[in-house]
Amino acid sequence: MKLTFSPASPFARKVRIAAIETGLIDKIELVPATVAPGTANDAYTRDINPLKKLPVLILDDGDVILDSYVIVEYLDDLAGGGKLIPASGPARWKAKADHSLLQGMLDSMLLCRYEKMVRPQGLQWQAWYDDHWNRAWAGMARFEQREDVLSGPFNVAQIGLVCVLGYADLRFSDCGWRKAYPKLDTFNQKMLERPSVKISVPPPA
Amino acid sequence: MKLTFSPASPFARKVRIAAIETGLIDKIELVPATVAPGTANDAYTRDINPLKKLPVLILDDGDVILDSYVIVEYLDDLAGGGKLIPASGPARWKAKADHSLLQGMLDSMLLCRYEKMVRPQGLQWQAWYDDHWNRAWAGMARFEQREDVLSGPFNVAQIGLVCVLGYADLRFSDCGWRKAYPKLDTFNQKMLERPSVKISVPPPA
Repeated sequence: MKLTFSPASPFARKVRIAAIETGLIDKIELVPATVAPGTANDAYTRDINPLKKLPVLILDDGDVILDSYVIVEYLDDLAGGGKLIPASGPARWKAKADHSLLQGMLDSMLLCRYEKMVRPQGLQWQAWYDDHWNRAWAGMARFEQREDVLSGPFNVAQIGLVCVLGYADLRFSDCGWRKAYPKLDTFNQKMLERPSVKISVPPPA
Repeated sequence: MKLTFSPASPFARKVRIAAIETGLIDKIELVPATVAPGTANDAYTRDINPLKKLPVLILDDGDVILDSYVIVEYLDDLAGGGKLIPASGPARWKAKADHSLLQGMLDSMLLCRYEKMVRPQGLQWQAWYDDHWNRAWAGMARFEQREDVLSGPFNVAQIGLVCVLGYADLRFSDCGWRKAYPKLDTFNQKMLERPSVKISVPPPA
């Protein structure tokens, strides 16, 4: 299998962590890819993903699996199921809903990044930036209260949360999340003891 | 259960179709909600979804399920499983990946809408609009070739596709998708024979 990949992408990091944790990382070739709004990448759009996003998992028969969450589900299933996503019951829906919230937080953080770093300066709209940053920030506030996630079993919600915090460090390094959310800080430090989490920390920008 | 809802939202439409098709619609109270970037909705953000997005399914015990895809999965599971999402095998991953592509197309179409209708006029960036519109358009081109989806069994990918096309009619009525993609047109007409699809067509803007 091949995975389109960038070390700075929190979505790709999520899949990398999942691949390590399910023992499948050695079956996956990481293929570097670069995508950005406003910059064409016709080969990628035509052959791999019309959405011009990564990561995408390309199976040996050529089928493509997206998005990052579905790839995590696929890897979990390949590894027998129930390792990263609880197999059934309320815990399953809680983990899935938590992950969707974290995914939306990452989407908003990426929109903030594009607003400041990709959109031409005179065309930036502060209210858009603030709105999306508030979503990420309010999401962190919610997880600060979620003792069940912070101390619970390792799963896709914990992976998503560590990717949010790592991306905050990479792109919003002065946002002060550690001070505002001390429980997330403790959680993050604990997570960094896992090799999969530690090795996938994005390199400094 | 309660579902935060807007008749113009293609994401909410997807859940409504799924709820009808799984026979669960009578157990769900549709709760009107209004959310837009740049406009605060503090009660919604605080009590329901920090992402300020709809739809959200609120269970009777107060737990919230997001996003629209996870809600569809939840309803499918409640109804016994395998009705809207194949339960296993390659068909499962194909339907999930197809849905993710369609979801990304809707996300891009919504970004186009916000760019033109919500962002102040002097701050609009045509390259951003074009980039995201191209993602939706290239996605339609891909599904135009997907005989297996267009003629296949009713599932979450077909629901997603009909929501994309309905949203194109609602917000991009002069984009010419019917002429460019005649197979999607035939598919859409056939889908409109289903009561769940017909009743959920967004009202004219």
